[in-house]
Amino acid sequence: MSRRLVYFNGAFIPEREARISIFDSALMYGDMVFEMTRSFNQRPYRLREHLERLYASMRYAEIDCGLTLDEMEAATRQTVERNLPALDGLDFQIMHDVTRGALPLYDTLVTEGTAPIVSINVFPLVRHIGHAAEKYEQGAHFVVTPQGAVPARYIDPKAKSRSRIHYRIADLQAGRMEPGAMALLTDEHGFITEGTGNNFFTVRDNEIFTPRPHNILRGVSRSACMDLAARLDIPVHEADLDPYDVRAADEAWFTSTTVCMVPITRFNFQPVGDGLPGPIYRRLLAAWSEEVGVDIAGQARRYAELAKTWKP
Amino acid sequence: MSRRLVYFNGAFIPEREARISIFDSALMYGDMVFEMTRSFNQRPYRLREHLERLYASMRYAEIDCGLTLDEMEAATRQTVERNLPALDGLDFQIMHDVTRGALPLYDTLVTEGTAPIVSINVFPLVRHIGHAAEKYEQGAHFVVTPQGAVPARYIDPKAKSRSRIHYRIADLQAGRMEPGAMALLTDEHGFITEGTGNNFFTVRDNEIFTPRPHNILRGVSRSACMDLAARLDIPVHEADLDPYDVRAADEAWFTSTTVCMVPITRFNFQPVGDGLPGPIYRRLLAAWSEEVGVDIAGQARRYAELAKTWKP
Amino acid sequence: MSRRLVYFNGAFIPEREARISIFDSALMYGDMVFEMTRSFNQRPYRLREHLERLYASMRYAEIDCGLTLDEMEAATRQTVERNLPALDGLDFQIMHDVTRGALPLYDTLVTEGTAPIVSINVFPLVRHIGHAAEKYEQGAHFVVTPQGAVPARYIDPKAKSRSRIHYRIADLQAGRMEPGAMALLTDEHGFITEGTGNNFFTVRDNEIFTPRPHNILRGVSRSACMDLAARLDIPVHEADLDPYDVRAADEAWFTSTTVCMVPITRFNFQPVGDGLPGPIYRRLLAAWSEEVGVDIAGQARRYAELAKTWKP
Amino acid sequence: MSRRLVYFNGAFIPEREARISIFDSALMYGDMVFEMTRSFNQRPYRLREHLERLYASMRYAEIDCGLTLDEMEAATRQTVERNLPALDGLDFQIMHDVTRGALPLYDTLVTEGTAPIVSINVFPLVRHIGHAAEKYEQGAHFVVTPQGAVPARYIDPKAKSRSRIHYRIADLQAGRMEPGAMALLTDEHGFITEGTGNNFFTVRDNEIFTPRPHNILRGVSRSACMDLAARLDIPVHEADLDPYDVRAADEAWFTSTTVCMVPITRFNFQPVGDGLPGPIYRRLLAAWSEEVGVDIAGQARRYAELAKTWKP
Amino acid sequence: MSRRLVYFNGAFIPEREARISIFDSALMYGDMVFEMTRSFNQRPYRLREHLERLYASMRYAEIDCGLTLDEMEAATRQTVERNLPALDGLDFQIMHDVTRGALPLYDTLVTEGTAPIVSINVFPLVRHIGHAAEKYEQGAHFVVTPQGAVPARYIDPKAKSRSRIHYRIADLQAGRMEPGAMALLTDEHGFITEGTGNNFFTVRDNEIFTPRPHNILRGVSRSACMDLAARLDIPVHEADLDPYDVRAADEAWFTSTTVCMVPITRFNFQPVGDGLPGPIYRRLLAAWSEEVGVDIAGQARRYAELAKTWKP
Amino acid sequence: MSRRLVYFNGAFIPEREARISIFDSALMYGDMVFEMTRSFNQRPYRLREHLERLYASMRYAEIDCGLTLDEMEAATRQTVERNLPALDGLDFQIMHDVTRGALPLYDTLVTEGTAPIVSINVFPLVRHIGHAAEKYEQGAHFVVTPQGAVPARYIDPKAKSRSRIHYRIADLQAGRMEPGAMALLTDEHGFITEGTGNNFFTVRDNEIFTPRPHNILRGVSRSACMDLAARLDIPVHEADLDPYDVRAADEAWFTSTTVCMVPITRFNFQPVGDGLPGPIYRRLLAAWSEEVGVDIAGQARRYAELAKTWKP
Repeated sequence: MSRRLVYFNGAFIPEREARISIFDSALMYGDMVFEMTRSFNQRPYRLREHLERLYASMRYAEIDCGLTLDEMEAATRQTVERNLPALDGLDFQIMHDVTRGALPLYDTLVTEGTAPIVSINVFPLVRHIGHAAEKYEQGAHFVVTPQGAVPARYIDPKAKSRSRIHYRIADLQAGRMEPGAMALLTDEHGFITEGTGNNFFTVRDNEIFTPRPHNILRGVSRSACMDLAARLDIPVHEADLDPYDVRAADEAWFTSTTVCMVPITRFNFQPVGDGLPGPIYRRLLAAWSEEVGVDIAGQARRYAELAKTWKP
Repeated sequence: MSRRLVYFNGAFIPEREARISIFDSALMYGDMVFEMTRSFNQRPYRLREHLERLYASMRYAEIDCGLTLDEMEAATRQTVERNLPALDGLDFQIMHDVTRGALPLYDTLVTEGTAPIVSINVFPLVRHIGHAAEKYEQGAHFVVTPQGAVPARYIDPKAKSRSRIHYRIADLQAGRMEPGAMALLTDEHGFITEGTGNNFFTVRDNEIFTPRPHNILRGVSRSACMDLAARLDIPVHEADLDPYDVRAADEAWFTSTTVCMVPITRFNFQPVGDGLPGPIYRRLLAAWSEEVGVDIAGQARRYAELAKTWKP
Repeated sequence: MSRRLVYFNGAFIPEREARISIFDSALMYGDMVFEMTRSFNQRPYRLREHLERLYASMRYAEIDCGLTLDEMEAATRQTVERNLPALDGLDFQIMHDVTRGALPLYDTLVTEGTAPIVSINVFPLVRHIGHAAEKYEQGAHFVVTPQGAVPARYIDPKAKSRSRIHYRIADLQAGRMEPGAMALLTDEHGFITEGTGNNFFTVRDNEIFTPRPHNILRGVSRSACMDLAARLDIPVHEADLDPYDVRAADEAWFTSTTVCMVPITRFNFQPVGDGLPGPIYRRLLAAWSEEVGVDIAGQARRYAELAKTWKP
Repeated sequence: MSRRLVYFNGAFIPEREARISIFDSALMYGDMVFEMTRSFNQRPYRLREHLERLYASMRYAEIDCGLTLDEMEAATRQTVERNLPALDGLDFQIMHDVTRGALPLYDTLVTEGTAPIVSINVFPLVRHIGHAAEKYEQGAHFVVTPQGAVPARYIDPKAKSRSRIHYRIADLQAGRMEPGAMALLTDEHGFITEGTGNNFFTVRDNEIFTPRPHNILRGVSRSACMDLAARLDIPVHEADLDPYDVRAADEAWFTSTTVCMVPITRFNFQPVGDGLPGPIYRRLLAAWSEEVGVDIAGQARRYAELAKTWKP
Repeated sequence: MSRRLVYFNGAFIPEREARISIFDSALMYGDMVFEMTRSFNQRPYRLREHLERLYASMRYAEIDCGLTLDEMEAATRQTVERNLPALDGLDFQIMHDVTRGALPLYDTLVTEGTAPIVSINVFPLVRHIGHAAEKYEQGAHFVVTPQGAVPARYIDPKAKSRSRIHYRIADLQAGRMEPGAMALLTDEHGFITEGTGNNFFTVRDNEIFTPRPHNILRGVSRSACMDLAARLDIPVHEADLDPYDVRAADEAWFTSTTVCMVPITRFNFQPVGDGLPGPIYRRLLAAWSEEVGVDIAGQARRYAELAKTWKP
Repeated sequence: MSRRLVYFNGAFIPEREARISIFDSALMYGDMVFEMTRSFNQRPYRLREHLERLYASMRYAEIDCGLTLDEMEAATRQTVERNLPALDGLDFQIMHDVTRGALPLYDTLVTEGTAPIVSINVFPLVRHIGHAAEKYEQGAHFVVTPQGAVPARYIDPKAKSRSRIHYRIADLQAGRMEPGAMALLTDEHGFITEGTGNNFFTVRDNEIFTPRPHNILRGVSRSACMDLAARLDIPVHEADLDPYDVRAADEAWFTSTTVCMVPITRFNFQPVGDGLPGPIYRRLLAAWSEEVGVDIAGQARRYAELAKTWKP
């Protein structure tokens, strides 16, 4: 049984006790905002950037969690510190969750009352990364699903809220098209937006293109990837992309917090470019690995091996 | 402290322990479907209809909860039975929640593992109804908010899922326009859809109009109200309604499970009709009260009194 | 020079003096609502219905003109009375205009100050009707213009406001396609809405179809025509119509206050049905003529003759 | 009583006589285009640019006013000249109005006949600017209203026409949310367009963002502001902005002809940045003041004082 | 080798010679309209209705084929007559094709010049029907594809033109989701429109629902099916249907010219109703068989057998 | 009779025999992709670029034509070579057509069976260019038609397929507005997309603007024109353009394969700029002529002369 502890409104509790009342607004309305940060060599990566986005999400939802941004960062670092012994030297993700609190009608049914709940937990990335290990070489298959992206004017994907059952539905649709295929959402105009929890990039003629930022989560890994490209003098354009552009692309990949960047070698059952991870992808991954001091794909292979025996 | 017990995957547990792990898909994705049923004289009202809708919601989300519809009904009746002593003769709501279960990545972090969770709980309607007591006479104020309804092709409101943070945002917007004002959502064409948890009706020239059923929750109380109108030979039309139609209406009301039907006497800061609950509203409410053997508005007044001292 | 007098905020003034300050909101924002009623045998036709719509328009614009509906009707009848000697026994239109009044910034620049202005004027229909005389036999040519209808959620056509420069633009476009052609507006889905100041009807297999009422002015003549059809047991359907349906129609016509109903014998340069006014059109026109005690097409021919010499 | 005179089709008439017949197309269809220019030290600012836009508006409406652009400029300067004695050394606005003229049906009812009317008038800015004086320090509150912007394909906001009753409706909605709040319109995609008579800017990380120019009036003050930024080497981007971006912004302001630029310190009831006028705003306002030789905020304070006693 | 002959601009030519020049507008622009009619007991079924729709398609495309409707019918009957000996007593389809003719630029490159081409051919339905034989019992699987229906305002599906490559793309997408699955197209609002060459019906509570007729081909078999339902006193509604409604349906089927009506027993990988052809489907199919004097499903089984050896 | 030969699945056949079976998917579904390339001095211009686009179109349609890109280029050059004697020294177009092949149901009715057909043909540009000769001086008239562009998410215009009957309909509409007028399509937002077979450019203040590339065919001549502008240091912007922008433009032109670039001197019945071909147009045309070694407008005048007597 895990020795990890979860920060829960200031206390530290066992992982299995990190639960939310069914009378909390989080479960009544998907009314919870969150963040997911990862570490490299056990140091949180771009933590401040993640927390700033968390506070932007709270402004969207008009939730006041009671902590300042600095206090939130301190609580986060304390949570990491406290769990280090239980992390076995592994890299981990940090998940922040903020609820609005119980609905007033049900105030006394909930231990915490109607105040917001802040929880922070850490979890080794063995499985997340290990499961993706072979994708770094073989690449992923992305398919456009009938389920589309919810336009930002209805529920804003830039705010990272938990009201996103449509991600699960898109995942189910993609998995039915081909086992292991991953969903790519398009917007009302047919433009590509994002995967269900990742951002999308293509390369054409040595320039990088990624969807414009109004209808997507503006991923921190997306920013990291764009920063790396800038450092390597590779032009990056935010553009309206549609399936035609992906079929014409030389390379594609997705970025997400846990796996950084993974090549997309098939799109809608056709190869992307020559169907292999491309040179620009490789350069960026190498630069990223160097920046963080971790061989990202190599770590994935190690964790894949470890995942066979590792107990969460 | 409440003596009520919550059905939770077959067991009965104290209310405050009815909690869901933060690693459950319900909290990761707003990935939970639910129902809300009420009793009259402690008998569940149109329970089967609610449960059928619950199973339609599960089909939408592709969740298999492991119970047949009959088993779910049996579990519900058992939950009511078990709680009767704690209900003090009061009418109550029954809430069904079904999650998809923990994400596989986190299987061991969650007591229940990756199986779906079914929970059923009951709660006296003292506050819900009591708080609305004066509205039966004075009526509610509905305002169109900038936050609009999410079109069904993105997240279907006909399926009662918990991914609905936009309801909270609309509520916050309405409350700012005027304290106590309630949000009325419009769709992408400007047509009225529904409130945040209720259905909308108007009367014009002695005929009833209610929004067409594609972009709304098809409320069981909505059906009940339409059935009553049919019995009283009052024509009911499902139609595209917009604010112009409400300004031209003679009456308006909303329906919801807990309060049945409440008159809307103001709309966007203008009176509806003559600003008083109208004759057709009154006829329907009387018929409803008769059908269920409860004076609905009278019960609300009694519960309002009781709410002053009642401890949940 | 005309002896007619215009009701203007309670006074009666010569026609040429019925002018609005350029500092009035009417000229600053197209912020004026209006109605147009006609007489048969010098008796206003469905006046009350027109005035009710005028008040609905004022509710839309949130203008309080200071008169009750009854007072407005009285002022109207007084205006007609006062002008009868100048009307030479001719039928006439009644135009109601209500402005919001001068912008407060400019209060002293305007004689009337910031109060709303109500004006009512009458004008013989010699030209309006006379110009249409031959259309009763030959029919009109309607063409779909690139300029489309403004959806009601932006500016509601059900409220009769003066913010409608797009009508003039559509008219100019239609006139360029063929001199004398009249504009037919379609909505964002390609459905037919209305002409620029008239409502549209078709017949197919002896049943009447007219656009659904959400994106159009709900014309009083439209209602009159539908009432007549009901009396003659001809089914009328409000439906989504598009150009395909018009090409497949047996008949078409438009209704408007001044000319009642005029056949449309060509649509987008193709004949409608056999290119002649149809039997259902003729029955309805006859019934209308009978109802109002005026041979409508006959009056048009008389007025056409008169228009050659008549001085307004 | 004002001694100011209005240019009216070549003549100069008293301000109160600058009125348009109710039979003019301007009042029949909101069929009038206009411009609003201001002076600094009594010299018209960017007059030519305003007049070029006026002619673009006339091309949109297909109105031929009978004057060349040069003649219009001459008439404007003559109007200013003529009124200088009555302007008491104050800065003023110049309003140009062009109607299409009376509808042919009513030719003889209107003194001017069916010819277009050109009117030009001047008015001291005491009230316009004075009323805004404290906003230069405290900033304005902008709120998104349910009333949205009319897409350009229906009625083009780039053409400055008087068919804009929706601006008044948005203003009424904003004022109800909070007295003094100003309306910010969003388009069909939820992107910010403009206020009801002003353009919108934000700053993020020392770069300026303003809505893309297709669905807005392309304000002359907007251009002026962008030119100033260019001169100060502050990057300016035309971009799709939505409420998320404003909540994430460091600063915001609006520009309009009369008040030049005013900070927006609150947005949807939340502070913008730290809730105070920001450094980039201040630099631009200073540069603008310097360019025109008028301390813009200082003038506002002086005019605020003067407004207490000034008689228009 | 087939002895069948194709009517081709008045002549009869061998089937393999029924070819269209690549310089014909049909191949330059998908600029060809067509019809598909079938026989029962070798008698064309509802031929006149098909031909009327063909002429409606020609009006849409503004093609004048040079034949009157009566002449077209005569040519059709002549084609059938001429081919009867080659049809071996089998039922057959009749395909009408009308092109606009060669583009004038290429007039001399085409034997027929720039005149429209009318071709009529017959083909035994052995394969069409035989391939569907087991579907009458097992039912079809319909899946919603990412490829949606083209809205009628762009290319009208009510006009049966050959510009419909999107049907092929939808078919390819459906086939990839599951071999044999058939595509169901949804419109821009997520409402179900039609399959790629067939119309869609559902049953709920003994009433039939089918998509509204604005965004679909108004199939002749669709009409036939609705007429049969009317004769059997089963209510039929044209309605906005979306996937939620299909999941809630008791039965579903599609209609098309060649196979009349085929049950849909799976929808998006879930059973429709109990997953078997339903009672209303069976009643309608029996009534249809009786009306035409052919056991429709029985014929399919016979043709399935025959198809194993039959040479076209 | 022409001596030209058409490449047809590897064989060379007379032009009049280049025909496609009515049972081929090309005629059943508009299911054919194509390219159009021209020569200068009998050398194909940017052939490779055209062929790459052809293969992108095939990927869109998921057609495998059986030839590699290199083989297609070789076949093309062979076709040109073979026809050189018949081309009389004239410049010509090369048309590539690829069908999917006969529908399997009809395999034996078609000589080629169900395999795709590749055809390549050449045709002197005497008429194409000759007919446009005077347009190089006088310019074309472009009008916005009611028929709009099909959004790329329905049928992608970036893939050059033959499903485009809406181009013909737009052409018919334009021709009715004014003989010789050419259609300009706008998209669902009112933005300009393209003509029916050409791309659109404007100039404002010495900078070039052309529609953004998501909803248009990305013309090879469009690229050529943009490349020339880059070489001449004239800025080119891809932008959202609407009719307002064209009315404000100094110049406009269109590009297409056969005529390269032709000035647009009238737009919606108003002059563009001063109504004459502009200086930037002239510079680009001169540069283009120089690049290809052909005086483009001069050749047009020569071919216009030749066209009077030339027999295709």
